[in-house]
Amino acid sequence: MPESAWSAPVRFAEVDQQGVVFNSHYLTYCDEAFAAFLAQRSTAVLDLVAFSARVRLVTSTLTWIRAATWGDLVDVEVRCERIGATSLSVSFAVRVGDQACCDVTTTYVLVDERGAPVPLPDAVRAALVSAQ
Amino acid sequence: MPESAWSAPVRFAEVDQQGVVFNSHYLTYCDEAFAAFLAQRSTAVLDLVAFSARVRLVTSTLTWIRAATWGDLVDVEVRCERIGATSLSVSFAVRVGDQACCDVTTTYVLVDERGAPVPLPDAVRAALVSAQ
Amino acid sequence: MPESAWSAPVRFAEVDQQGVVFNSHYLTYCDEAFAAFLAQRSTAVLDLVAFSARVRLVTSTLTWIRAATWGDLVDVEVRCERIGATSLSVSFAVRVGDQACCDVTTTYVLVDERGAPVPLPDAVRAALVSAQ
Amino acid sequence: MPESAWSAPVRFAEVDQQGVVFNSHYLTYCDEAFAAFLAQRSTAVLDLVAFSARVRLVTSTLTWIRAATWGDLVDVEVRCERIGATSLSVSFAVRVGDQACCDVTTTYVLVDERGAPVPLPDAVRAALVSAQ
Repeated sequence: MPESAWSAPVRFAEVDQQGVVFNSHYLTYCDEAFAAFLAQRSTAVLDLVAFSARVRLVTSTLTWIRAATWGDLVDVEVRCERIGATSLSVSFAVRVGDQACCDVTTTYVLVDERGAPVPLPDAVRAALVSAQ
Repeated sequence: MPESAWSAPVRFAEVDQQGVVFNSHYLTYCDEAFAAFLAQRSTAVLDLVAFSARVRLVTSTLTWIRAATWGDLVDVEVRCERIGATSLSVSFAVRVGDQACCDVTTTYVLVDERGAPVPLPDAVRAALVSAQ
Repeated sequence: MPESAWSAPVRFAEVDQQGVVFNSHYLTYCDEAFAAFLAQRSTAVLDLVAFSARVRLVTSTLTWIRAATWGDLVDVEVRCERIGATSLSVSFAVRVGDQACCDVTTTYVLVDERGAPVPLPDAVRAALVSAQ
Repeated sequence: MPESAWSAPVRFAEVDQQGVVFNSHYLTYCDEAFAAFLAQRSTAVLDLVAFSARVRLVTSTLTWIRAATWGDLVDVEVRCERIGATSLSVSFAVRVGDQACCDVTTTYVLVDERGAPVPLPDAVRAALVSAQ
């Protein structure tokens, strides 16, 4: 199985009265996984965490496959699917063991201080598609 | 402006250190708005809240337009966009005043105890597309 | 019954798999209720919301009496119990209808930019103990 | 430093617009730490996780010392402070490195199906005060 970027046990507070992780928490898992993915690709000269503070969420699509439950160890694999001039699309595979739970694809755009899209630097583009 | 199904002020705990509502909370707003939408269409003989306990989330797409901030009064308009044999797609327009913040479309499927899709009853179909 | 400072229906995402509001959410309710309490006592010349941004939490004690459940309308009554030189203690009565759910007492201290306690202004002291 | 029962990095969604962990999340950390503490003391013949499902929260006191921030690795040490006939008090030391962040003391009572207090079994009492 591919290495996951982020992993954590499901918390009791994340499970609803139907006994499954409430839907919104999958976005939180992906947010943490994206930060971990960027930290793992940062170097002394390329701070991708600082980069992540300058991107804005455009859109996110979640597809639920099977519910995670309390105590399950959730793994999130992260992959950069597409890099455009100013935006990138990232896929997140949220799973428990080898069981897929939720697939998420999120598009981010790099913006300047006024919120206008700006080109992704070449060093960032290279890092995003590199193996860790 | 159309009537919103659900409304609430943004809570301090929902705002992140960038000063905007953290992305996952929009799914929580929509969840509450869908429950309110169903409660508003329930009658003495048609319990749509009980119906909602029998649907399962299939997929959800969020598009962020403009961030809501602490103290903003969030309104969510709900509209049933499509009703299939066993599933339905619902659109949620999350806004602050007349400013759109986030558009969400979610597909739900009605399932039996084993999780298998079952046909939507005619009374439910009629209620879902009715004006309130 | 006394007027509550803040009120909201329990959200589905706040209820755990035992069917009751997860314990930490009572602190979120009190946080919102304190902000509402201060906003209700602000005037053109006294901005208690700005004041609230300058206080720091010291301690909080929660006593759970009876669990709130999904859809319950939670009311929070707020009362300033004690005002010292630099700190204040506030009690929160979280209830559903006339049923007490959780009593919370929280002590806040007013601090300067370096985090050192500073005296509470007289105008703030007067407003905190006023009826609305 | 004593071994912590539970540890996790602070999540971005847990940090508020003042740049610190929002107060209610410390209760979530302690809830996870208590579950981990019990799991670590469970044996083939003593299921303390099942025990934890039968306790009810009575009261909890939090004292904040220093704020944790995004990315900090939070450790929670757990110690059973007092065991009475039907209840127990547990202290939680939430820290980042060797810096104390929040001290929490929580009292739980063991209850039967109708919510009436029942005596703590001797095997449970012994396990709660054992070193891991």
